Amino acid sequence: MFKLIKQDGLARRGEFNTVHGTVQTPVFMNVGTLGAIKGAVSSMDLKDIGCQVELSNTYHLHVRPGDKIIKEMGGLHKFMNWDRPILTDSGGFQVFSLAKLRKIKEEGVYFNSHIDGKKIFMGPEESMQIQSNLGSTIAMAFDECVALPAEYKYAKESHERTIRWLKRCKDELKRLNSLPDTINPHQMLFGINQGATFDDLRIENMKEIAKLDLDGYAIGGLAVGETTEEMYHILDVTLPHAPQDKPRYLMGVGTPQNILEAVDRGIDFFDCVMPSRNARHCNLFTENGYMNLKNEKFEKDPLPIEPGCTCPACRNYSRAYIRHLFKAKEMLAMRLCVLHNLNFYNRLMENIRKAIEEGRYSEFKEEKLKAYSRRV
Amino acid sequence: MFKLIKQDGLARRGEFNTVHGTVQTPVFMNVGTLGAIKGAVSSMDLKDIGCQVELSNTYHLHVRPGDKIIKEMGGLHKFMNWDRPILTDSGGFQVFSLAKLRKIKEEGVYFNSHIDGKKIFMGPEESMQIQSNLGSTIAMAFDECVALPAEYKYAKESHERTIRWLKRCKDELKRLNSLPDTINPHQMLFGINQGATFDDLRIENMKEIAKLDLDGYAIGGLAVGETTEEMYHILDVTLPHAPQDKPRYLMGVGTPQNILEAVDRGIDFFDCVMPSRNARHCNLFTENGYMNLKNEKFEKDPLPIEPGCTCPACRNYSRAYIRHLFKAKEMLAMRLCVLHNLNFYNRLMENIRKAIEEGRYSEFKEEKLKAYSRRV
Repeated sequence: MFKLIKQDGLARRGEFNTVHGTVQTPVFMNVGTLGAIKGAVSSMDLKDIGCQVELSNTYHLHVRPGDKIIKEMGGLHKFMNWDRPILTDSGGFQVFSLAKLRKIKEEGVYFNSHIDGKKIFMGPEESMQIQSNLGSTIAMAFDECVALPAEYKYAKESHERTIRWLKRCKDELKRLNSLPDTINPHQMLFGINQGATFDDLRIENMKEIAKLDLDGYAIGGLAVGETTEEMYHILDVTLPHAPQDKPRYLMGVGTPQNILEAVDRGIDFFDCVMPSRNARHCNLFTENGYMNLKNEKFEKDPLPIEPGCTCPACRNYSRAYIRHLFKAKEMLAMRLCVLHNLNFYNRLMENIRKAIEEGRYSEFKEEKLKAYSRRV
Repeated sequence: MFKLIKQDGLARRGEFNTVHGTVQTPVFMNVGTLGAIKGAVSSMDLKDIGCQVELSNTYHLHVRPGDKIIKEMGGLHKFMNWDRPILTDSGGFQVFSLAKLRKIKEEGVYFNSHIDGKKIFMGPEESMQIQSNLGSTIAMAFDECVALPAEYKYAKESHERTIRWLKRCKDELKRLNSLPDTINPHQMLFGINQGATFDDLRIENMKEIAKLDLDGYAIGGLAVGETTEEMYHILDVTLPHAPQDKPRYLMGVGTPQNILEAVDRGIDFFDCVMPSRNARHCNLFTENGYMNLKNEKFEKDPLPIEPGCTCPACRNYSRAYIRHLFKAKEMLAMRLCVLHNLNFYNRLMENIRKAIEEGRYSEFKEEKLKAYSRRV
C-alpha cells in the first residue's frame, strides 16, 4: 500500500494507497472542523486549500454527537461530506490530557469525562470499536502517552503495556473489519512507538511493533515538552528500526522548521494544531517569514498576506482588510487566517515532495530554514 | 436611473441602475461582515448566495478602522473586495441606539462613543463626508429616528428638523461628489421619511422630501416597536405621496411575511438583520416553514436544511451534521446557517420579482404566507 518513489538522503517521497484515494507523501494532515479546531473551516474549504488527509478526534466525536450516531449516518466521510482519506486518533491522547482522575490498568483506562464527569472506560478494544464506527481510513492504536520528563521504570512498564495494547488493537480491528455491517472493511491501523526520551526503550519498542506488520508506524509521545534536539535525536535512533516499506507519522509536530528536519530524517506523515492555533492570534506563516498581522505597520497595507499565495484569503483580501476584521472581532478574520496557514503548510509539503523528487532536498531545507527564520 | 418594468397591483418590478451595476427590484440587501453581522460571511460568500446589494454600517466603519483609512485604501468596494452596489446607512440609527448622553441640536448630534466614551459630533455634513470617504453607491441621509411611542409635538419638531438636515445632506453630497479626489463622483442619496406613527406628519414629510428629487426614498423609524398593522398602515398612507419613478426602501424590515406585505404596498428595497441573527440561534427559514435545527428530531436527519435549496449549506451538509456542529459550538454551524438564511431571503426576492412579472403577485403572496406560517 505504501510505495517509495524516491529517496534523497533519508528523506522519502512516497505514495500511500487507501480505499479513499492515494496520498502523496510527505503529507501534512489538516484537522477539520469536527474536532477541536475552530475557524469555521468546512470540508469544502479543505479541498480549496489542497488538504489530502483530514484528521478527526475520536474522543471528541465519541462524546458528541456519539460514534454510534455517526455510524447510523453512514460513517464520518458521509457525515462531514469528505471523500478523501481520514485519519482518526485513538482517543488516548485526549484521555491522558483532558480526563480527570484517570486510572490506568492492564485492561485500559478508567477516567471521568471532562464534560460531565461521567465515568468512562476506554481500552484498546473500545478505541477500535469507536474508530470502526466512525469508519475512518486510518485508525490509530490506543496507547499511553507518557508525560515528560518520565522516570525510566515507568516509561518501560508503559511502553511494554502499550505493545500489549497494540496487539489487542490489531486483533480487534481485524474482527471489526470482517463484520457484515462495518462502515469501512478496509480500515487500516497505524501503531505508535513510545518509550519517552530513552533511546533503548524507543528502539526496543520499535523493533517489537515492526514485527506486527501494521499499515504504518507513528512516533508518539513527542512535542510534549522535550527540546527539539531531543526530538530529532529520538528520530535519529528510532527510525532505522522502523520498516522501510511502511509510512512513518510524527504525531503533533510541528513548526515548518520541525517538519523540514523530520522529513530529512525519514518522516512521511505530520499533523499539528499550530497553523490553525497561531492563525487565531493573527500569527501567519509565509515564504518570506513569520508575520503578526496585528502589527500597526499593516494598517494600510494593500498587499495580500503573502503576495503570490493561492489561498482564498490572499486571492481576495488585503492585509489592511483582514487586520481590520481582527480588530473589529469579526469571525471572518480568523477564518481567513486559518485558511492561509493551512494552505501554507499544504504547499510547503508540495514543495518538499518536489525537492525530494528532484534530489535537492538538502539545499531546499537550508534555504527554507533561512527564509522561515525571518519576520515580515 | 429607476425603471419601472411592470406593476401588479401596487407591487413594482423595477431596475435600478448604478455605477456599480443594475439592481433588480424588489431587492433584499445583505449586511456584510464589515458591519455588525457575525458569521464569517465574506464578500465571496455573498456572491455565492446571490446578494445584489451589500449594506455597510457607516458609524461602525467611522469608529473602526476609520473612514479616512478606507478612503486611502481606495474606498469600501476595493477594501472589502466587492464590485456590486453598496448602500451605507447614515450612522444616525447607531447614534440614536448605541451612543450615550446624546444631545440633539439644530447643527447635529453631540454624543459619547459607545466604545471609548470619546465625545463625537455628527451632523448631516459629517455623515455625508464619512459616506463620501467610504465611496458607497448609495448614501443615506442623516436623520433622527424617533423612539416609539412618540409625542406628537416632538415627532413634528423632529421630522421638520430631519427635512432641514436632508437639504443640507443634499447640498453637501453635491459638493463632495464634485471634489477631484472623491472616491465615487456618482454617489447617490436616498432621503428618509419620518413622522413616527402620525399619518399627517408622515404625509407632510413625504410630500416635502419628494420635492427634493432624490435618487430614492426610504421609510425610516419603523420596526422599532410598533405593531405590524401600524407599520402597514403607515405604508398605505405614505407611499401614495412618494415619487412613482424613484425606488422606495423600507428600512430594517423584516420577516418574510413583512416583506411580502410591504412589496404588495409598493416597497422596492429591504434590509434586516433577522436572517443572520436568527441563523445564529439555529432558527432557519425554508419554503416549507420555519425550523429550529436544535430540535432533537433532527439529530439523525440526513436531509439538507431545505431539500432543493441551492445554498452552500444545503448543497453540502445534512441537518444532523449542522446540528452537531451547533451542539459542539463550532463556528462553522453559524456560518452555514447564516448563508442558508440569507440565500433564502435572496431567493424569496427572486420569486417575488418573477410573480410580479407574471402578474400573479396576489396569489403568490397568499401561498407564501401560508407556507411560511408552518413549522418544519
